[in-house]
Amino acid sequence: MIRPFASRGRFRSPQKKSAPAMQERRRTHIIPAAFQKKIGEMRGENLKIVPLGGLEEVGRNMMFLEYGDEIVIIDMGLQFPEEGMPGIDYIIPNIAYLKENKHKIRGVIITHGHYDHIGAIPHLVPELGNPTVYAMPMTRGIILRRQEDFKHLPKITVETIRLDEKLKLGNYFEAEFFHVNHNIFDTVGVAIRTPAGIIAHTADFKFDNNPVGDKPADYAKMAALSAEGVTLLMSDSTGAQHPGHSISEKAIQENLEHIFVHSKGRIIAVTFGSLLSRVQQLITLAEKFNRRVVVEGFSMKSNIAIAQELGYIKIKRGTIIDVREVDRYPANEILVIGTGAQGESNAMLMRIANKEHRHIQLQKGDTVVFSSSVIPGNERTVQSLKDLIYRQGGSVIHYQMMDIHAGGHAQSEDLKMMMNLMRPKFFMPIHGNYFLLKMHADLAESIGIEPENIVIASNGQIVEVSREKISATKKSVPASYVMVDGLGVGDVGEVVLRDRQMLSEDGIFVIITILDSKTGKIYGSPDIISRGFIYLKENQELLKEVRHKIRQIVEHTASPEATLNTDYIKNNIRDKIGQFLFSKTERRPMVLPVVIEV
Amino acid sequence: MIRPFASRGRFRSPQKKSAPAMQERRRTHIIPAAFQKKIGEMRGENLKIVPLGGLEEVGRNMMFLEYGDEIVIIDMGLQFPEEGMPGIDYIIPNIAYLKENKHKIRGVIITHGHYDHIGAIPHLVPELGNPTVYAMPMTRGIILRRQEDFKHLPKITVETIRLDEKLKLGNYFEAEFFHVNHNIFDTVGVAIRTPAGIIAHTADFKFDNNPVGDKPADYAKMAALSAEGVTLLMSDSTGAQHPGHSISEKAIQENLEHIFVHSKGRIIAVTFGSLLSRVQQLITLAEKFNRRVVVEGFSMKSNIAIAQELGYIKIKRGTIIDVREVDRYPANEILVIGTGAQGESNAMLMRIANKEHRHIQLQKGDTVVFSSSVIPGNERTVQSLKDLIYRQGGSVIHYQMMDIHAGGHAQSEDLKMMMNLMRPKFFMPIHGNYFLLKMHADLAESIGIEPENIVIASNGQIVEVSREKISATKKSVPASYVMVDGLGVGDVGEVVLRDRQMLSEDGIFVIITILDSKTGKIYGSPDIISRGFIYLKENQELLKEVRHKIRQIVEHTASPEATLNTDYIKNNIRDKIGQFLFSKTERRPMVLPVVIEV
Repeated sequence: MIRPFASRGRFRSPQKKSAPAMQERRRTHIIPAAFQKKIGEMRGENLKIVPLGGLEEVGRNMMFLEYGDEIVIIDMGLQFPEEGMPGIDYIIPNIAYLKENKHKIRGVIITHGHYDHIGAIPHLVPELGNPTVYAMPMTRGIILRRQEDFKHLPKITVETIRLDEKLKLGNYFEAEFFHVNHNIFDTVGVAIRTPAGIIAHTADFKFDNNPVGDKPADYAKMAALSAEGVTLLMSDSTGAQHPGHSISEKAIQENLEHIFVHSKGRIIAVTFGSLLSRVQQLITLAEKFNRRVVVEGFSMKSNIAIAQELGYIKIKRGTIIDVREVDRYPANEILVIGTGAQGESNAMLMRIANKEHRHIQLQKGDTVVFSSSVIPGNERTVQSLKDLIYRQGGSVIHYQMMDIHAGGHAQSEDLKMMMNLMRPKFFMPIHGNYFLLKMHADLAESIGIEPENIVIASNGQIVEVSREKISATKKSVPASYVMVDGLGVGDVGEVVLRDRQMLSEDGIFVIITILDSKTGKIYGSPDIISRGFIYLKENQELLKEVRHKIRQIVEHTASPEATLNTDYIKNNIRDKIGQFLFSKTERRPMVLPVVIEV
Repeated sequence: MIRPFASRGRFRSPQKKSAPAMQERRRTHIIPAAFQKKIGEMRGENLKIVPLGGLEEVGRNMMFLEYGDEIVIIDMGLQFPEEGMPGIDYIIPNIAYLKENKHKIRGVIITHGHYDHIGAIPHLVPELGNPTVYAMPMTRGIILRRQEDFKHLPKITVETIRLDEKLKLGNYFEAEFFHVNHNIFDTVGVAIRTPAGIIAHTADFKFDNNPVGDKPADYAKMAALSAEGVTLLMSDSTGAQHPGHSISEKAIQENLEHIFVHSKGRIIAVTFGSLLSRVQQLITLAEKFNRRVVVEGFSMKSNIAIAQELGYIKIKRGTIIDVREVDRYPANEILVIGTGAQGESNAMLMRIANKEHRHIQLQKGDTVVFSSSVIPGNERTVQSLKDLIYRQGGSVIHYQMMDIHAGGHAQSEDLKMMMNLMRPKFFMPIHGNYFLLKMHADLAESIGIEPENIVIASNGQIVEVSREKISATKKSVPASYVMVDGLGVGDVGEVVLRDRQMLSEDGIFVIITILDSKTGKIYGSPDIISRGFIYLKENQELLKEVRHKIRQIVEHTASPEATLNTDYIKNNIRDKIGQFLFSKTERRPMVLPVVIEV
């Protein structure tokens, strides 16, 4: 439930207002017509642009612009953990530099509501002196919804931005926004007028000339920026390796319609919780083919609620039914929409497939439609999920069989079109692994942007821009991973991760030896505790040998004559028992010797 | 190096011999013309077919046929570990049933040399009384090469099979072999004449009418089997979810040629170590475009050596150069072929990308060609690998950009063609996850095989076949995972894996408390060792609280009056400290309390 809110934003109204009704609706405040004076002029100093994440990976997108004593931040995303990071919830950008300069921050602009652009907000905004966050209505709704998961953290301020307004941030920055297509509503590109000219940031985007529940990207505004002159374009590289154009949602709709025409049982469609245009398509088709709709999955439900309140999703009265009513209708009159296309263990589809869902059980004739791509790393889980579905008589249609999903990112041809629309002097690819940035840079060169005007930056690297020159300097700010694990932010580092990795490979082997400090002899028998290595019960012979070896090591190194050197004994036990266990098993458990003197 | 060998096989020669030269070459023995009598007749009992792996996953392929007191085994593969199996090397089939019936085993037929069909041989054959393994020359070479990695295991006997011969195994089984296409040379389907009629097994296969260095599949022989009447067809389901036909190697060749035409620097091509037809294509192109070839990677080199000796790969004199000579030639005269397309840490490409290769460093202008698909689970590693390549000035061409790889498995249309060629009475899909088997079964139904004549079996399930009827019975033999970890086979089970998983998520927290058995009081301060949880040094406050709590717990439960109950104290410490740590960190390390009385 989104509450009406009063904005304290500092907007500059344009001459002519033409805001569409759907954006007008939620506004409850009058915009002060301030900031008539122009933004500050260049004064010997270059504009700094510093990416803090998103330039060496897909995710954790965040950057800031700095001029004089003013800073504007764009996006604050999280990144999902990579392999070799067991137990980590997610990674957020490193804000060490910004913390020291928080007095300079004039605002945080958020381009859209995906977690790789908003996910670090609850952790970072309070650390930076609670600067105002500016976002479109849908984005704002999602940000505020997520804040509810972090009740222990301080409240934050989120102002709504409008496409027909300019946002003055400090003396040096003035932002305006242009609509782009992406697979979440209300995605905006940002053009910031700075002393170095217009710096444009595409956000994540694609072009769709037949979008569903949305308008095509605002080519006119981009062309107008181009006419004014764009100093630097920073553009989304996620799709740079794919040739051609991305598929329009219109084509997706036709394929989905094909499924509705031919399915004789229930249709269970899963997609990303934020992919509301897909949800709208599915609901429209359900209405056309006389199916009632059940929506399941907390994130999807709350996103739909936000979008419905903003008027972005249109659902006829009576279409949505409660999940408890699902069995009152014939199978061919039911559409279930939910989450779980990645095989997430708690999402709707996995619960249904595991027979753990309270109201929906799979039945023969059910068609499960995976209307999403599979995120790298989830393929195997999704295969098991398909097995579960087929075993219960369902069948699966997924994006490899039919175009029932379009990604959210512009492919090569559309990336070139963006550059040709904007005609920037300088170009800097953002959002993606290095190889994607490089491929995107190659595309820029292919349409005639000079190599010296293209910069591929790294996370943390300070890029300096004037109207004449761009350079990726050798200076940088901290941009290393900050890992979130439970309540801990940044307290898990390399050593802890390496230990976890090692423990997971071959387990642990703890040896507790008690020494009589008077005699230097072992008191009793060494205690051995092991987990994740082998079954101790079935390996008594091995344990006996280990105990014997420990006794040898201790008796060899400790003697009543010499002073007891427990560190030396411990190292000896660690090395020799480690070698012994490897020779017997070819496994390397972490050997932890504890030597206690009594 | 493959040595000539004398076969002790029991082959029945056909009337007319027409073996191609390349198979003739390696034979050094005369085939005894024995076994003129027909195979045993049906006598009240059904033929049993029992899959031991490969019917609920892609991998670990193995099955056996049993009639009377005779058993024939087909394939003995391994499966790579799934998520949630940290530290496991691989999984092999469970042979509990076969071990008890090893006196019945008449032979082991291997269809081709991929590890998911041969990988368990070193572990299983010696356990089964060393039955003879029958394989085509290339397959035999790979099996014998792999045996060298298991010098501590007993030697095995591998006989060569011929396409123009029949192999009598016991009284009830007579096998003959038909050539199929797959992405390794010498892949054969198997037709076994049994008392229940012909049981055909396609192996892994595809149809390629323009294969490279190979012939098209032997349609004529399949048609002849069909004319004789096939009781049961068991067919490869791996590609069942893909519509249409698979791409011919001819098309791949044309795209590869395109790369050779346009590359101005070195070409570094990586593919699977066993994909020798691809290697042949690359070498042929190198010869055409005047490039010298360096081959790197142990498995690839040894496979090429085997194939060259068998005459399956043709390389002109002077084409191959030593890796140490690589810098003596201009960049556009070099082709490097190697392994590492999955981002394997020890393979050639990763070593080059990490600057750890002794002779090859990436340089600007290098084109790295990934001529293979990415196995699910390896996507992220491959992305990092691409980053490394681009950072060093190389560029990458992979199968998502251009058809430079064809999978080895028949897709829907070819699967239907196989059924139409063989016209079996009964059909049983093999090789794949359940959803693939089901999709394959649906294809069978679509071409008119009656549903009651189609059986989808599970691993371990006993399928009974006569000429009239097929049924997946309710009886089964053990088919659970047998995990190989270092030298241990089957000694890692659920508990050990669960512990490893838990350790990897949040680490371990060991608490060692020494009690004075006389007073029941804690002796000194409890020792705490933790790994993979948090940095203890930076969390002294937490440790202090934990020590305080332990003291409370012990003093509350132990007293000089009562008898010391260390189990009770331990459980108390585990529960309460576990809860305390979770409340402070939202992490759940494995808490291991050790209580020692002195």
